[in-house]
Amino acid sequence: MHAYRTHRCDALRAEDAGKTVRLSGWVHSKRDHGGLLFIDLRDHFGITQIVFPSALLDQVERVRVESVLTVTGEVVLREGATVNPKLPTGAIEVRAQEMQVQSQAAVLPLQVAGNEHYSDELRLSYRYLDLRRERVHKNMMLRANVIASLRRRMIDQGFTEFQTPILTASSPEGARDFLVPARNHPGKFYALPQAPQQFKQLLMVAGFDRYFQIAPCFRDEAARADRSPGEFYQLDFEMSFVTQEDVFATIEPVIAGVFEEFGRGRTVDAAPFTRIPYDVALAEYGSDKPDLRNPLRISDVTDAFAGSGFGLFARIAASGGQVRAIPAPGAGDRPRSFFDKLNNWARDEKQGGLGYITFDAEGAKGPIAKNLEADRCETIRERCGLKAGDAVFFVAGPRDGLKGVETVKFSGAVRTRIANELDLIEQNAFRFCWVVDFPMYELNEETGQIDFSHNPFSMPQGGLEALNTQDPLTIKAFQYDIVCNGIELSSGAIRNHRPDVMIRAFEIAGYPESEVEARFGGMLNAFRYGAPPHGGSAPGVDRIVMLLADEPNIREVILFPLNQQGEDPMMGAPAAVPEARMKELSLRTVLPPAKPVPGATSPVVPETKPN
Amino acid sequence: MHAYRTHRCDALRAEDAGKTVRLSGWVHSKRDHGGLLFIDLRDHFGITQIVFPSALLDQVERVRVESVLTVTGEVVLREGATVNPKLPTGAIEVRAQEMQVQSQAAVLPLQVAGNEHYSDELRLSYRYLDLRRERVHKNMMLRANVIASLRRRMIDQGFTEFQTPILTASSPEGARDFLVPARNHPGKFYALPQAPQQFKQLLMVAGFDRYFQIAPCFRDEAARADRSPGEFYQLDFEMSFVTQEDVFATIEPVIAGVFEEFGRGRTVDAAPFTRIPYDVALAEYGSDKPDLRNPLRISDVTDAFAGSGFGLFARIAASGGQVRAIPAPGAGDRPRSFFDKLNNWARDEKQGGLGYITFDAEGAKGPIAKNLEADRCETIRERCGLKAGDAVFFVAGPRDGLKGVETVKFSGAVRTRIANELDLIEQNAFRFCWVVDFPMYELNEETGQIDFSHNPFSMPQGGLEALNTQDPLTIKAFQYDIVCNGIELSSGAIRNHRPDVMIRAFEIAGYPESEVEARFGGMLNAFRYGAPPHGGSAPGVDRIVMLLADEPNIREVILFPLNQQGEDPMMGAPAAVPEARMKELSLRTVLPPAKPVPGATSPVVPETKPN
Repeated sequence: MHAYRTHRCDALRAEDAGKTVRLSGWVHSKRDHGGLLFIDLRDHFGITQIVFPSALLDQVERVRVESVLTVTGEVVLREGATVNPKLPTGAIEVRAQEMQVQSQAAVLPLQVAGNEHYSDELRLSYRYLDLRRERVHKNMMLRANVIASLRRRMIDQGFTEFQTPILTASSPEGARDFLVPARNHPGKFYALPQAPQQFKQLLMVAGFDRYFQIAPCFRDEAARADRSPGEFYQLDFEMSFVTQEDVFATIEPVIAGVFEEFGRGRTVDAAPFTRIPYDVALAEYGSDKPDLRNPLRISDVTDAFAGSGFGLFARIAASGGQVRAIPAPGAGDRPRSFFDKLNNWARDEKQGGLGYITFDAEGAKGPIAKNLEADRCETIRERCGLKAGDAVFFVAGPRDGLKGVETVKFSGAVRTRIANELDLIEQNAFRFCWVVDFPMYELNEETGQIDFSHNPFSMPQGGLEALNTQDPLTIKAFQYDIVCNGIELSSGAIRNHRPDVMIRAFEIAGYPESEVEARFGGMLNAFRYGAPPHGGSAPGVDRIVMLLADEPNIREVILFPLNQQGEDPMMGAPAAVPEARMKELSLRTVLPPAKPVPGATSPVVPETKPN
Repeated sequence: MHAYRTHRCDALRAEDAGKTVRLSGWVHSKRDHGGLLFIDLRDHFGITQIVFPSALLDQVERVRVESVLTVTGEVVLREGATVNPKLPTGAIEVRAQEMQVQSQAAVLPLQVAGNEHYSDELRLSYRYLDLRRERVHKNMMLRANVIASLRRRMIDQGFTEFQTPILTASSPEGARDFLVPARNHPGKFYALPQAPQQFKQLLMVAGFDRYFQIAPCFRDEAARADRSPGEFYQLDFEMSFVTQEDVFATIEPVIAGVFEEFGRGRTVDAAPFTRIPYDVALAEYGSDKPDLRNPLRISDVTDAFAGSGFGLFARIAASGGQVRAIPAPGAGDRPRSFFDKLNNWARDEKQGGLGYITFDAEGAKGPIAKNLEADRCETIRERCGLKAGDAVFFVAGPRDGLKGVETVKFSGAVRTRIANELDLIEQNAFRFCWVVDFPMYELNEETGQIDFSHNPFSMPQGGLEALNTQDPLTIKAFQYDIVCNGIELSSGAIRNHRPDVMIRAFEIAGYPESEVEARFGGMLNAFRYGAPPHGGSAPGVDRIVMLLADEPNIREVILFPLNQQGEDPMMGAPAAVPEARMKELSLRTVLPPAKPVPGATSPVVPETKPN
């Protein structure tokens, strides 16, 4: 008989009755039933009930929950009401004949069984216990299975996984790098990659055609609910000789497939996903991350108010501003308090308020309708697709520049708020879209200069000719985002693989050729020895798992996350290092000047001595 | 028609004749055949010959090799002698009708076609060109496919892949960590993991049963042929509730399977692999990394020389030394120069020389045999399994302590040398063994103290009882190495999961409990809340690929390796960082004192200013 187990704790069934078996696992719970002691023995796979006879009672009573036992005994059918149909092994129990304690557990700082709430600090300090808890354990297995599935699906799509360097050079990604001192090069540092962007493009230049990687990425940024400090993973991929539509067609079945596989019955959009131009996303959804579970669409009704009797909006229209209408189907007969609440919320959001019209069988009602001509009300009703019993809210403000974007984005917030209030958000669904045709450039209102709006390395639509002939602010880029339920999974682009186009694109944004060569010479050089047209994207793995696990915090889908201060309280990271190591690295710590703010909690670290 | 390609460059066959197709790829070569220009167009998948008619000549002539083209044209059957049976597409060519240059290549710093030798520095500076070369490209695909296969096989064996942290704490692995300054914790550093050893053990404590990871590992060590500076990958795995034999039985089919799959017909040992106790490995192979392709076995023949007429070895035997015999089958009739050459080699290795006996039909011959009694010669002949026409070499020296180990290891070197000289090494084979039963402790000759011989965290055979009752120097550990063709792929062990056993094991090696708690308290604490018996190993991925690719240098199987100085000349890593970043990290560079050695090439870096 095996030293530890003949079966796993999920394995035994009624037909095993009579067998002598050996199981090993953790004491999930203990129950004393007058002379008999029951233990639920748990391993990774499941739970089996063990009954200890009086002969073993002395030995078992001393064993605390979460101790590890090896139990040898006979499989016995449970009788009548003691059968547990919820447990796969619930038809049987094991009558222990021998028991060995592999590891005696001390008194636990947190309970594994049950759903008690513990602080993050406690959970991370005893993460090996926390990870035994059912929900956390399941989340980690979900993550592992999602990643394995992504890999399988990418390989099926003809991609090859390559490992790109982790000790590398700083890259122009925009966030802050983590640095690694190079011992043999005093004063010099490696950087951990914010993303393998340059390497994946170099792989295309090297001719590998389709690359992917479940890639660790590193950004020295503050923690957020959807951003763990330190490291995160993306499904990084890149393809050669492809158009934007090829990229979409290749990755859609991978994403849809994974959501189908792990969605536990939730509705998943089939490929092809909806494509929404950036301008339309802003106009109709008030967001560049449209949540398609929300059925509401925003309309521009500025013309209906221009020159109208409703002076406030008429003046906004006259001054080149905009009025946006957000429908609220079925809200027409809501009490006044409903509208007041939304109005107050808008004011809390530092907006002027939320005007509205309600429609009943007789027509338009409410404070705005009183001052607005009936045919104008009708125009609005028709444009927003409303009927009697519905309502519509208005957001008004400037049209141009940053203030214009603010107006649009607030209309998006209203869209979300109304759909939530009216319970219109589709439940148990994953709705995907591609936002496409991002503008290549935007006007910097402060400097009056033209800036890149998103990624300077994307290919401009129309190529060199567009750059040379079009108003830069009208040029779109082959750049796209994939959005699920209003959450951006990733940006991506068809890359600019032509040095001449890149130099011209930067010139428009005010960078002379010499500066482009100085900053991005490595990539430019690579493109000078035969570069294929290529493009890709990098959906966030942690975000995909968060969506599938329905967890609001990214720490719930990471095995050993750092806490919000970027610390691992269990392993004691980060830590001070011996002076000899500092010397070896040619480094000295120089404490920042003491903070003048009273109560500041900057840790006190002695300066290392000169050497 | 697709913008870039209807087919890949390996796709077209005779039956495609007449089709209009579009191909994209790199200009592998150009040949001018009087009015017609031939281009071999290459992509990741293969090569197709393109014929350009005179109408396109002007355009094509300006295109340099390695430019990227898109060609549209008709598939035409090649005629007679122009058919190329070596090329999958050799039955056809494409008559170009249209051609578009996607990317014009500059004059190349290294040629992609052909096998010219270039310096490592040039190859790494233009790695994207180097990676296009057939052998390098194939090695990278081999690596990627080996890793994908390892993953598939591990999942089939019931393992789950988990990502362990990369920004973590320093661990007691023995080598030097790479450190990462923690911006928000002045004076503190993260460490990159030398291996996920602690995390994988914590995963077992957390109950995940079977973990694996294609794990990036980081050691700040000097480069070697089989060690790339910086990062490397291992197939890290760990299992719960297993014995040593369970670990072997689980991983053997994975390793054997991968070698079968990618061995290109070379012979691969089937599971189970030979197990060789550490003591036997040293005695019979003169190495703890036995190369089983070598058929020679070493024998101890000290007794045959004890009190014999061959004074030198008789004295060594009398003083407690040893004489080891290495057979040289078929070497009996080699000329004197053969033996002289080996003798000179031994002296170059700073050994006394290599005594030998040859055997012919009449008996033993040679300088030693002259002084050694015939029955003693016969004992040696018999023990070494020799016959007329064979020879045997002798290595003699102390038996005990470090000098004894040196004697044994030199006998191993002789074994290798003789097998090479006599061409006895089995070709085209992968021979595996497990070296088992490593000693737990060894005597430190300098201090007279007992030290751990290998890994202090392995479970001693016999557990606490052995520690309490046996002479420590006789205790074996559940520790093992897997060796292929004399190359260690990995160490591994059944871990010590019991705090009481661990504290006692360290006590024997002279560490008081307080120090064990201080240094390894994190792991010890985890083991105090219910730890399963567990064990694992971590075969080196890069080494596996080196063996399969038959490449002697690890850089040949890594996409973007650092050079021997730990630099990436292409990306410019490591690099100086702006002073603002240093300030943000609370660090200052302190240059090491100028080296007194003339000609030292320490880079000159200005000290950053105090701040």
